Amino acid sequence: MPDPTFKAGEYLSQITYPKDLREKFSTEQLPQVCDELRDFIIDVVSQKGGHFGASLGVVEMTVALHYVFDTPYDQLVWDVGHQAYGHKILTGRREVFHTNRKYKGLSGFPKIKESEYDTFGVGHSSTSISAALGMAVANRSRGQLDRHHVAVIGDGAMTAGLAFEGLNHAGVENSNLLVVLNDNCMSIDPNVGALKEYLTDITTSHTYNRVKDEVWHLLGKMSRFGPNAREIVQKVENSIKSSLLQHSNLFESLNFRYFGPIDGHDVVHMAKVMEDLRDIPGPKILHCITKKGKGYKPAEEGSATKWHAPGIFNKDTGEIIKVTPKSPQPPKYQDVFGHTIVELAEKNEKIVGVTPAMPSGSSLNIMMEAMPDRAFDVGIAEQHAVTFSAGLATQGMRPFCNIYSSFMQRAYDQVVHDVAIQELPVIFCLDRAGVAGADGPTHHGAYDIAYMRCVPNLVVSAPMNEEELRNLMYTSQLEETSEPFVIRYPRGQGVMPEWKTPFRKVKIGTGRRVKSGDDLAILSIGHIGNEALAAAEELDKDGVSAAHYDLRFVKPLDEVLLHEVFGKFNHVITVEDGCIQGGFGSAVLEFMSDHGYASQVVRLGIPDRVVEHGSQPQLYAECGYDKEAIKAEAIRLTSASHRSKSNISAS
Amino acid sequence: MPDPTFKAGEYLSQITYPKDLREKFSTEQLPQVCDELRDFIIDVVSQKGGHFGASLGVVEMTVALHYVFDTPYDQLVWDVGHQAYGHKILTGRREVFHTNRKYKGLSGFPKIKESEYDTFGVGHSSTSISAALGMAVANRSRGQLDRHHVAVIGDGAMTAGLAFEGLNHAGVENSNLLVVLNDNCMSIDPNVGALKEYLTDITTSHTYNRVKDEVWHLLGKMSRFGPNAREIVQKVENSIKSSLLQHSNLFESLNFRYFGPIDGHDVVHMAKVMEDLRDIPGPKILHCITKKGKGYKPAEEGSATKWHAPGIFNKDTGEIIKVTPKSPQPPKYQDVFGHTIVELAEKNEKIVGVTPAMPSGSSLNIMMEAMPDRAFDVGIAEQHAVTFSAGLATQGMRPFCNIYSSFMQRAYDQVVHDVAIQELPVIFCLDRAGVAGADGPTHHGAYDIAYMRCVPNLVVSAPMNEEELRNLMYTSQLEETSEPFVIRYPRGQGVMPEWKTPFRKVKIGTGRRVKSGDDLAILSIGHIGNEALAAAEELDKDGVSAAHYDLRFVKPLDEVLLHEVFGKFNHVITVEDGCIQGGFGSAVLEFMSDHGYASQVVRLGIPDRVVEHGSQPQLYAECGYDKEAIKAEAIRLTSASHRSKSNISAS
Repeated sequence: MPDPTFKAGEYLSQITYPKDLREKFSTEQLPQVCDELRDFIIDVVSQKGGHFGASLGVVEMTVALHYVFDTPYDQLVWDVGHQAYGHKILTGRREVFHTNRKYKGLSGFPKIKESEYDTFGVGHSSTSISAALGMAVANRSRGQLDRHHVAVIGDGAMTAGLAFEGLNHAGVENSNLLVVLNDNCMSIDPNVGALKEYLTDITTSHTYNRVKDEVWHLLGKMSRFGPNAREIVQKVENSIKSSLLQHSNLFESLNFRYFGPIDGHDVVHMAKVMEDLRDIPGPKILHCITKKGKGYKPAEEGSATKWHAPGIFNKDTGEIIKVTPKSPQPPKYQDVFGHTIVELAEKNEKIVGVTPAMPSGSSLNIMMEAMPDRAFDVGIAEQHAVTFSAGLATQGMRPFCNIYSSFMQRAYDQVVHDVAIQELPVIFCLDRAGVAGADGPTHHGAYDIAYMRCVPNLVVSAPMNEEELRNLMYTSQLEETSEPFVIRYPRGQGVMPEWKTPFRKVKIGTGRRVKSGDDLAILSIGHIGNEALAAAEELDKDGVSAAHYDLRFVKPLDEVLLHEVFGKFNHVITVEDGCIQGGFGSAVLEFMSDHGYASQVVRLGIPDRVVEHGSQPQLYAECGYDKEAIKAEAIRLTSASHRSKSNISAS
Repeated sequence: MPDPTFKAGEYLSQITYPKDLREKFSTEQLPQVCDELRDFIIDVVSQKGGHFGASLGVVEMTVALHYVFDTPYDQLVWDVGHQAYGHKILTGRREVFHTNRKYKGLSGFPKIKESEYDTFGVGHSSTSISAALGMAVANRSRGQLDRHHVAVIGDGAMTAGLAFEGLNHAGVENSNLLVVLNDNCMSIDPNVGALKEYLTDITTSHTYNRVKDEVWHLLGKMSRFGPNAREIVQKVENSIKSSLLQHSNLFESLNFRYFGPIDGHDVVHMAKVMEDLRDIPGPKILHCITKKGKGYKPAEEGSATKWHAPGIFNKDTGEIIKVTPKSPQPPKYQDVFGHTIVELAEKNEKIVGVTPAMPSGSSLNIMMEAMPDRAFDVGIAEQHAVTFSAGLATQGMRPFCNIYSSFMQRAYDQVVHDVAIQELPVIFCLDRAGVAGADGPTHHGAYDIAYMRCVPNLVVSAPMNEEELRNLMYTSQLEETSEPFVIRYPRGQGVMPEWKTPFRKVKIGTGRRVKSGDDLAILSIGHIGNEALAAAEELDKDGVSAAHYDLRFVKPLDEVLLHEVFGKFNHVITVEDGCIQGGFGSAVLEFMSDHGYASQVVRLGIPDRVVEHGSQPQLYAECGYDKEAIKAEAIRLTSASHRSKSNISAS
């Protein structure tokens, strides 16, 4: 299981669990622990890939937290979780860390089932304060008052409403909660919004902080003298607040005691500060300034977006290794979106673009550069992104609101309540729909077809290739199209190297027959249709004549096409890169039932269980809807038809 | 259409549209307009029912806003919207206001299709800032810089994450946005959380506000001197902020200019202040202190929760008119929940209760009174309620998280990401599932079966009566039950006057045959099963022998029972008080398809369109799933079977 390629340094090799860190090393030795931990991360990630900048930025914080707090008795909650590599390495997983994000390997995020040190599974942002508060309240209720609860949250994640809701509640629960604000002025893309400007302001306001710095050290010391001291501490602090400083901080407005900002790369100082804070009761926030990519020069100096998850690179030169393909490759769907929206917006001045903190991931950054006034990054705020888009649409604008499929779950009510019920023509582009790959279950866009198609007034579509994506985008913004419009597409590449096709209007609710056949019909939705088509073509050689239909719309369904299909075929396979419970296949069953057809239908898609991480092809195969699985099912189905159908009751 | 019972006063009768208010009356006459408007509301609501306290509290604010701003050119967005009665009366709907919340009558909330003065449809809280910002940005982009955008939001709604996300973005968009904070220290139940304490603090801090009060009047005046003045204003204000006051306000932290607090019942002063603010550019917030129920003594002095929507009352005595039924009535489902959780919690110390601002609506207030340490009202914060519950569950607690079905849409990602993927045993009680009645489309819990059953690991259930609700709650909290557990039930009464039955464990995934029959089977889920049962019983008299099955679980389905059904019946009707797209009926179709059955199935439920408001029986009938509709469908289905089945293809 251990890979001898990756060697830990002198200190790090002695640390299997945080206990070792606490028992074997003095505070003064922590800097070397940090250096070795950082080297180890650089070593593995440069050769194996994965998230990078975020974990480097919290090396010192990670070491300080595990040094000061009694993990896992004390509960440490990482927000988002892609910065938890150091945490994983220090908590029993160093030797398997090279399997990170690989199929059947470690998860790229904290995960309860992986380790007792992973207190809360993550992937999406801004859950840590609420989760840690829940833990704190639970442990308070069973009398474990010595137990500490720490939420580590980035400044980007702090803009999401959930984080604010957590703060608002935590401020009135007297529990052992420490929020460590990891302020690197970034989420994945540069952080935006008023909160960010505010954090910059307090970071640079020295008068206030110098005084506080001295005072809280004293407070921490005093708290240790027992329960009476708590009262004194409270009094001292109140008097500071009201008379000495005359300054009310945003977090203090919410009843948190605010400490900082401090240097998040000074591990010795940080450990001291955390020790002080540990003994101060009630909700408190420690503001640490860090730098993404810290300690690795190319990442420190280069673009943080580029070094967020750079892929494999030469750790000595900092050169990111790109395999140059011999032939022209198809573009990523996201780039087709990014270029196409600009093309459309050049002609239609009503078009605007909206993304919640994913300009590079969605490629909306292409529009942000070309038309800065017409593209909005609203920060990690999916709910606001949708309602803001709804507001734009009330005034006649045509917003393209681009949100990853799994993140769209955060804005479901806004889709229903603000867009669908009001029939506002917002266009939702759901990137990363279907299995997302190495990011795993939190990022799989598995449920969107099911949770969208039950909502009235929505058009729900998915393109099979680049040309279809362009045509659907084109159609969605036409004056005559008045419905809210969902377009879902997967992470990664399409299939058309020559993708820049002329725009063509698609009639809403129409699919297309891609291939004719006689023995059975394969109905697909979206990009996975390419697997279906390949299967259909190969089936011909196996003597099974399979027709293939790309439905293009889940809602409304192409009823003419479906009448053709069910009028002709007794065997039908539906294929979707989405959950089979309530998904596209179920929509087809509904049609069938409503019109009294009784063909045999097999639905292929994401099964009703949590699918772990892996490459997309690995997961297509595991879930049974890649080319091979479709072929196998087609053969099984058509050969079975020669046998008895005893369990099909006659109507 | 007008009802002569309701007479407007001298001034009010001259106002059809806000233009009349602005053109016919001086500022000094506004108090009388307010008095007459208040009387009119009291008059109608006391006889016709509806929301009450909220609208009374904003009478002055409503008049001032329409007096100062050029509605509908200026855009006025009401948050939540149940306080918009005065607004409706002043904007062309006085004469039909008595139809408010009645079937086919006015909506109880603002609604785009009802009036051009209703800029944004509402019902759920905390959308107004995002929506108004979208409008402001859209109008800025088309050069309409003179257009104002006002979001009126309560202090309760301000705690929701969406409001914070909106503030965070608005703080960096330079647009004409005024947020009017209607601070009545209440949402429906008393407001909770740190923000509330904060608002109380600033309300009582006079030093800061007195200075500001004088300054902003000056600022408003100065702004009118043209573009240059803007710069001066900015400078003056900055210098005030940094040197004179040395005080940073929470809203100012987010780049909003903060004004207030002012008396929200002094219409003359408020109009003056709003006039001043209108001319100050950029995002600003006006903090108004109001009282729910203002101007109607019994409401002012009584419980705000009671007077939120009191039903019909004697306006002279303040006596709420309750029809005392002759025989014992079944309890409301919510009360069965409220009493049962206390019963269970007395024996199981791991049980805690969580509600986002609906203690009285969910009846969790019964537990909050009986066990204050174990029941949490977290404020309007559905997302946090779920993730907080998840955090509690990681420590072995068994949280019952009670959220209205339609509000649960706000926490969908948290259900998927924080609870289901991690298999944490949180128990979700979804009140108001199915059509919600007079509150209309924003409140119908139409989609929960569809959006929940596609998520792995969840148990999704619905009780047909009180006893079943108790047994499901009992089962959900047993040590052996490790899955997250959804229990949905409707608004209103059950069917069992003797509801306090002994607890009995239900095997998860089992339904029950309620009535035998031979000609067809009716499968139902939840309370609507009572309509199905009544239909089945009456069908016997019509010569149709209908069996009735209560499935109890949508997920997992009772496969043994379904094999029995499909083995025996060629005709099956599914009945649900939920959307038929992807809902319970579709789950049955999936089973049927997966097991090769080909019976004829008709799915009854909420159709794929926005269903408006009305009483539950009216809407059951309109949607075609009340007793009569089920009977009619059963007769149609069974008699059709005697005719040809030409369109059913043989398999």
